[in-house]
Amino acid sequence: MTKLNWGMIGGGAGSQIGPTHRISAGLDGHFLLCAGAFDIDPDRGKAFAGSLGVSADRAYGDWREMLAAESARDDRLDLVTIATPNATHYEISRAFLEAGFNVLCEKPLTMTANEAREIVEITKESGKVCAVNYGYSGYPLVRQMRAMIANGDLGKIRLIKAEFAHGFHADAEEADNPRVRWRYDPAQAGTSAVFADAGIHAFHMACFVSGQTPTELSADFASLVGDRQLEDDAMINFHFNGGAVCRLWTSAVAVGRMHGLTLQVFGEKGGLSWQQQHPEQLHWTPLNGRTQILERGDSDLSEQAVRASRIPIGHAEGMPVAFANIYMDLADVLNAQRTGAKPDPMALDFPQAEDGYWSMRAIEAAASSAKANGAWTKL
Amino acid sequence: MTKLNWGMIGGGAGSQIGPTHRISAGLDGHFLLCAGAFDIDPDRGKAFAGSLGVSADRAYGDWREMLAAESARDDRLDLVTIATPNATHYEISRAFLEAGFNVLCEKPLTMTANEAREIVEITKESGKVCAVNYGYSGYPLVRQMRAMIANGDLGKIRLIKAEFAHGFHADAEEADNPRVRWRYDPAQAGTSAVFADAGIHAFHMACFVSGQTPTELSADFASLVGDRQLEDDAMINFHFNGGAVCRLWTSAVAVGRMHGLTLQVFGEKGGLSWQQQHPEQLHWTPLNGRTQILERGDSDLSEQAVRASRIPIGHAEGMPVAFANIYMDLADVLNAQRTGAKPDPMALDFPQAEDGYWSMRAIEAAASSAKANGAWTKL
Amino acid sequence: MTKLNWGMIGGGAGSQIGPTHRISAGLDGHFLLCAGAFDIDPDRGKAFAGSLGVSADRAYGDWREMLAAESARDDRLDLVTIATPNATHYEISRAFLEAGFNVLCEKPLTMTANEAREIVEITKESGKVCAVNYGYSGYPLVRQMRAMIANGDLGKIRLIKAEFAHGFHADAEEADNPRVRWRYDPAQAGTSAVFADAGIHAFHMACFVSGQTPTELSADFASLVGDRQLEDDAMINFHFNGGAVCRLWTSAVAVGRMHGLTLQVFGEKGGLSWQQQHPEQLHWTPLNGRTQILERGDSDLSEQAVRASRIPIGHAEGMPVAFANIYMDLADVLNAQRTGAKPDPMALDFPQAEDGYWSMRAIEAAASSAKANGAWTKL
Amino acid sequence: MTKLNWGMIGGGAGSQIGPTHRISAGLDGHFLLCAGAFDIDPDRGKAFAGSLGVSADRAYGDWREMLAAESARDDRLDLVTIATPNATHYEISRAFLEAGFNVLCEKPLTMTANEAREIVEITKESGKVCAVNYGYSGYPLVRQMRAMIANGDLGKIRLIKAEFAHGFHADAEEADNPRVRWRYDPAQAGTSAVFADAGIHAFHMACFVSGQTPTELSADFASLVGDRQLEDDAMINFHFNGGAVCRLWTSAVAVGRMHGLTLQVFGEKGGLSWQQQHPEQLHWTPLNGRTQILERGDSDLSEQAVRASRIPIGHAEGMPVAFANIYMDLADVLNAQRTGAKPDPMALDFPQAEDGYWSMRAIEAAASSAKANGAWTKL
Ligand SMILES: NC(=O)c1ccc[n+]([C@@H]2O[C@H](COP(=O)([O-])OP(=O)(O)OC[C@H]3O[C@@H](n4cnc5c(N)ncnc54)[C@H](O)[C@@H]3O)[C@@H](O)[C@H]2O)c1
Ligand SMILES: NC(=O)c1ccc[n+]([C@@H]2O[C@H](COP(=O)([O-])OP(=O)(O)OC[C@H]3O[C@@H](n4cnc5c(N)ncnc54)[C@H](O)[C@@H]3O)[C@@H](O)[C@H]2O)c1
Ligand SMILES: NC(=O)c1ccc[n+]([C@@H]2O[C@H](COP(=O)([O-])OP(=O)(O)OC[C@H]3O[C@@H](n4cnc5c(N)ncnc54)[C@H](O)[C@@H]3O)[C@@H](O)[C@H]2O)c1
Ligand SMILES: NC(=O)c1ccc[n+]([C@@H]2O[C@H](COP(=O)([O-])OP(=O)(O)OC[C@H]3O[C@@H](n4cnc5c(N)ncnc54)[C@H](O)[C@@H]3O)[C@@H](O)[C@H]2O)c1
Repeated sequence: MTKLNWGMIGGGAGSQIGPTHRISAGLDGHFLLCAGAFDIDPDRGKAFAGSLGVSADRAYGDWREMLAAESARDDRLDLVTIATPNATHYEISRAFLEAGFNVLCEKPLTMTANEAREIVEITKESGKVCAVNYGYSGYPLVRQMRAMIANGDLGKIRLIKAEFAHGFHADAEEADNPRVRWRYDPAQAGTSAVFADAGIHAFHMACFVSGQTPTELSADFASLVGDRQLEDDAMINFHFNGGAVCRLWTSAVAVGRMHGLTLQVFGEKGGLSWQQQHPEQLHWTPLNGRTQILERGDSDLSEQAVRASRIPIGHAEGMPVAFANIYMDLADVLNAQRTGAKPDPMALDFPQAEDGYWSMRAIEAAASSAKANGAWTKL
Repeated sequence: MTKLNWGMIGGGAGSQIGPTHRISAGLDGHFLLCAGAFDIDPDRGKAFAGSLGVSADRAYGDWREMLAAESARDDRLDLVTIATPNATHYEISRAFLEAGFNVLCEKPLTMTANEAREIVEITKESGKVCAVNYGYSGYPLVRQMRAMIANGDLGKIRLIKAEFAHGFHADAEEADNPRVRWRYDPAQAGTSAVFADAGIHAFHMACFVSGQTPTELSADFASLVGDRQLEDDAMINFHFNGGAVCRLWTSAVAVGRMHGLTLQVFGEKGGLSWQQQHPEQLHWTPLNGRTQILERGDSDLSEQAVRASRIPIGHAEGMPVAFANIYMDLADVLNAQRTGAKPDPMALDFPQAEDGYWSMRAIEAAASSAKANGAWTKL
Repeated sequence: MTKLNWGMIGGGAGSQIGPTHRISAGLDGHFLLCAGAFDIDPDRGKAFAGSLGVSADRAYGDWREMLAAESARDDRLDLVTIATPNATHYEISRAFLEAGFNVLCEKPLTMTANEAREIVEITKESGKVCAVNYGYSGYPLVRQMRAMIANGDLGKIRLIKAEFAHGFHADAEEADNPRVRWRYDPAQAGTSAVFADAGIHAFHMACFVSGQTPTELSADFASLVGDRQLEDDAMINFHFNGGAVCRLWTSAVAVGRMHGLTLQVFGEKGGLSWQQQHPEQLHWTPLNGRTQILERGDSDLSEQAVRASRIPIGHAEGMPVAFANIYMDLADVLNAQRTGAKPDPMALDFPQAEDGYWSMRAIEAAASSAKANGAWTKL
Repeated sequence: MTKLNWGMIGGGAGSQIGPTHRISAGLDGHFLLCAGAFDIDPDRGKAFAGSLGVSADRAYGDWREMLAAESARDDRLDLVTIATPNATHYEISRAFLEAGFNVLCEKPLTMTANEAREIVEITKESGKVCAVNYGYSGYPLVRQMRAMIANGDLGKIRLIKAEFAHGFHADAEEADNPRVRWRYDPAQAGTSAVFADAGIHAFHMACFVSGQTPTELSADFASLVGDRQLEDDAMINFHFNGGAVCRLWTSAVAVGRMHGLTLQVFGEKGGLSWQQQHPEQLHWTPLNGRTQILERGDSDLSEQAVRASRIPIGHAEGMPVAFANIYMDLADVLNAQRTGAKPDPMALDFPQAEDGYWSMRAIEAAASSAKANGAWTKL
């Protein structure tokens, strides 16, 4: 197998999410990091590129330079990952897609739903891939949930309970810390703080496992610490197009919760319950039956879950390996692109521009519902 | 110690809650069951009374007969427990209070907030006790939560997350079962089903531990099974008078949840988390500190929790013992009544008519908010 | 139903286990406490009897007086519970059995296996009941384990893992506290400390659920705190007569464990796992299948477990209710004795003199094996 | 940073542990796979090397060929990983060490303690590194345990409870499956099956966290399925040189346990409890204090645990990342070797030949004790 050529924008030295991308992309050996504009500071970015083994001629000072140079090469990048701050995602994604590159953009895809719709259009026209890193959907047992629901094991879905709550912004004395402050400042963060940043993962997962999208929502936003202008706690009720009700709680003031991403789905024929902190177990209760514990790595899981699983049962695979499944899917699709073959249909489940678009719509609708005292708002 | 004389109305042979009352009232040996009108069927009620060791002259065919006869006796009942169906609570409680009896009424105290307000008034005038059986507040670690919050350990309370969710009404094929059907029929159940029946416990506990009451709420009700007229799933947001936001979820369609009553409280200085299914542990996370596990039975708990605890640490006391704490409190208060002494201040924490009243207000406001698409509604 | 007449020896004011007996015996209303010699101090015992509602003529200064007076009465005691310190059990049990009383003796039944064998013989001759309070066997899900194993659900039992470990004697500075010290003094406690006191419950449960008894054992005793002469930690391997290996760990120095009584059973066709701290769930894994969670209170459990269950699913019943099942069984058997009827066969599962005897044999064999460096020792 | 040159022997296509090595070695980008003899079948091995991007001239047909060719090169391999079947480890490790390579050998290091002692000697003479892959010691919270104990937080260690139990060889009908059979055949597996294969990890961890080694042991081996000649279940008691008692259980017939590797350590001043299935939490109970939950990723952990941690708190890192810490340590040490610098002292905690040697001694002593009915056997 020839490796796929991979480039990165952002994710420089000391960045939060950059290392995870490199771990995940490298995990299966599909991708070779061969180009990058890693930093807002050109020199630091080039030095960092060198430390990662990127050759000097492909270590760029900024993304425009990289776009120009890489567009001209024969050994084209198969994938460009964008891991810069939110406000730059739209412009960079757009430029690379238009130049015919495949893109994996960090969430959020854009700052507005309109921009996201544009990216969806551009992606379609380009015939390229635009993925968005809702990486929690890579967990094998999350894919198991999706497979069971698609397979009808739960019957019609009635109710989805989703949570993403932590307590890392609960300290009033830390509220003025710049690392925290900007997140609650509308000028920098937009219309929503904790829902856009954390809760949106739970939203994506509710859509992902159910295969449904929202038609309307009612949101309650609360600012519970200091004089924050944006919400640090939110409760949102959704109606989904397949008839499900979805209730989503997200918080940054829940002291004692550690990124407590949880997902419960209740249907006519049974219920599922999963929590990110113990991602290796999925609880499945058939209607009128006993709760069963499904273990990641078990051979009786769906083929989607088995495909997304690498190490023996009883050993936590963990989050970096979950994120690696997004890259595994992309490798499959990009290799098919290269060779003209059909990708494995199971590889098509990674989050895409369309998902990024739905997220932006949900954020805008939630912020506007919250302002209107929770009025039900169409999406 | 002379035992307290105790009578029951309802709770006859085969009833659901009757045996729990007898276990709980008898547990510490404070109460002697000496009179009762146990059944809607007079003969069955009298026979049952005999089987419980109640003497024939105090085994009554109905509560009016009991009221008349018992009012005339010298060896007056110290407490009358009312464990009949909901619609009868108001009339019976009222009559016994007016005749000067102490009452422990099953929840709901009445069918409307107005009725409940009357009971509150009558209770005040009578100088007697009117308790309402929100028995989960008897758990030692729930009292620990209340004590810690009252003590300021959490600082100002920001957020309360409360849940009471089960899946016992999820089977569409069981929806016409009369045991289930009446609960979703407005003619029989009133304006709310699962919130009034199950979620109301979570509501009471949120008030109980925080020491706050609601000022307004916004409710979303969903009917997810068949053509039910009342809700089998509800999400309610509250604003409390001490500034806390409370988010309460209740459901009867959550397959795999077993009466999952949970309570999380987040304040300026830390967070608490408790779940009824494992009632012996309370998780406490001080701000910026590590989560600690508080064990029921530990000597370093609050005096309220120690007082409510009977058996050694490491052994689940369970729900019947929790409910017995309500009777223990009542015994303390009624003995003080008898002797003219002051009751232990810690004995005054049992749920009372006022709590029953707040519950009815919450139910009415929630039903009306739900009808108005979740409009924020004052209480 | 006429109540059964019940008497107690020991379990006086401030005693540890006395209140549990009164809660458990009273729970279902089967027993009426009408006589007792509750205390080593006659006056205190009589005063305490009064406080429990025992009439003055049946409040005794000591057990011999009680034996004489009660033997002469027409309204004979149906059951005498013995809850005095260990060294007195043999003498008192023996005397009451020989006088034709039914007895429930606290564990250990005697101080030696020989004495226990005598009690077994005397019980047989008397035709009366001699129960021993291995009360944990009253948990509904422990009975479920026994029923499943008896039913062949696990096939041949291969392995039993049993633990009873706590950390309440771990503090070296407390080692001289008289409340702790006597337990590790051979003169007062006999040949074994933590195994005889705590681990023996795990031993009884291994026998109880498997329906097997030991043929030989190898024990390792450790004294880990200060200069204790008896063991505060022990590991014992058993061979059982049905072919099972049993591995039992017990400890008093396991800081952080709270009476962690656990039981795992592995057979040809599956495995079971239960822990006393969360007694409402039993994990069952059929061979090559998924782990299922059995909930106490579920209607699909064995009839033995259903019979031993009182309150709705999802609510912990707890340990006092488990112990009450021993009294429930006894009530059934004693009522049958009264009327000449056959007791419910399911009522015969309570621990009896024979179990007390096996415990003493196990203790003696373990102590002697431990002294012989773990030599395999026949029972 | 220049990458370290890395080679592999074994771990070919379809092998169990090979992919984990490649994931873990690649995770931080320290190592570049540039040579290998991956398979017992030379052609398959070379083809596989190509698929991994190894250049043709360094894709070898067998390890002798690789040894000869690589010894002659200037761009020498910095590390050779040996992931072949057990019986080959001694010969290959020895040859590569003698030729001056650094080695990471899969466990067991050898088939006998004598061989292992030789490897220890050779390693010393060579001045090179010989690591052994007891990879579970890479978990951040296992390193936290070691750091806390080294720091005296627990005081003198009294007791270690270690378990590694699974149920994957419990099916009697699978016992003749060749994939399972060889493990219980002394001719192929040596003197011990489940202890040598699984329990040995628990043994290593007990030594690793306590910083102690065994002085004597007493073992009970059981063969519980079919006519197996070697043990599929074992209980071993150890005396450690620092005074600790260690009790270790390992099993292959524990249906429902999923590689349940657990470790509890009890000392004078507190207790620790960790389980591999939920590797992100460590429970710490100070003597007379409350149990605290330590979360992987928390900044208040030891510097050893912080160093071994890559992703944010609340997200399981999982086993591949734990194993990667062994490679991270090696990279640190090998880079120091290259440059002549001193390695970070914290990097020296990876398992080494000495650990492989102690494992072999423990296996031999356990097998001989088990044969002698559990006689205490010196190491
Ligand atoms: N999917 C997830 O779970 C997840 C988790 C964390 C962060 N994120 C997303 O990842 C993105 C990055 O977040 P982070 O926390 O790593 O941020 P960060 O601030 O830690 O790092 C940002 C990096 O981008 C570089 N950068 C900034 N502007 C640049 C530019 N114009 N050109 C090139 N490089 C530039 C910076 O120098 C830095 O190295 C955000 O959009 C965030 O929402 C996603
Ligand atoms: N606090 C709790 O957690 C909890 C739990 C369950 C039930 N409850 C409440 O307890 C009450 C009883 O519920 P249940 O489930 O036991 O009902 P049930 O139908 O099982 O039993 C009701 C009993 O009352 C008797 N009865 C009916 N009308 C009577 C009358 N007029 N006079 C005398 N006896 C009469 C019936 O014969 C029967 O014995 C309800 O109000 C319910 O909301 C509370
Ligand atoms: N089954 C269990 O789980 C369990 C638990 C705790 C105790 N126990 C057993 O219960 C028994 C009592 O233990 P405890 O912890 O309650 O002891 P305790 O010391 O707390 O109480 C003993 C009581 O017996 C009274 N007494 C002593 N000698 C007497 C005599 N000759 N006549 C009458 N009364 C006498 C004392 O005055 C006191 O009231 C012991 O055998 C113990 O092993 C069993
Ligand atoms: N540390 C752990 O947790 C762990 C887990 C699993 C396996 N292991 C160890 O890893 C080793 C390999 O186990 P596995 O389960 O991966 O085995 P496996 O049978 O799955 O794979 C062995 C690989 O080695 C190759 N091989 C065999 N002989 C060879 C030779 N002479 N030269 C080159 N290649 C050769 C085979 O072709 C195959 O690719 C064993 O020693 C085992 O104990 C350790």
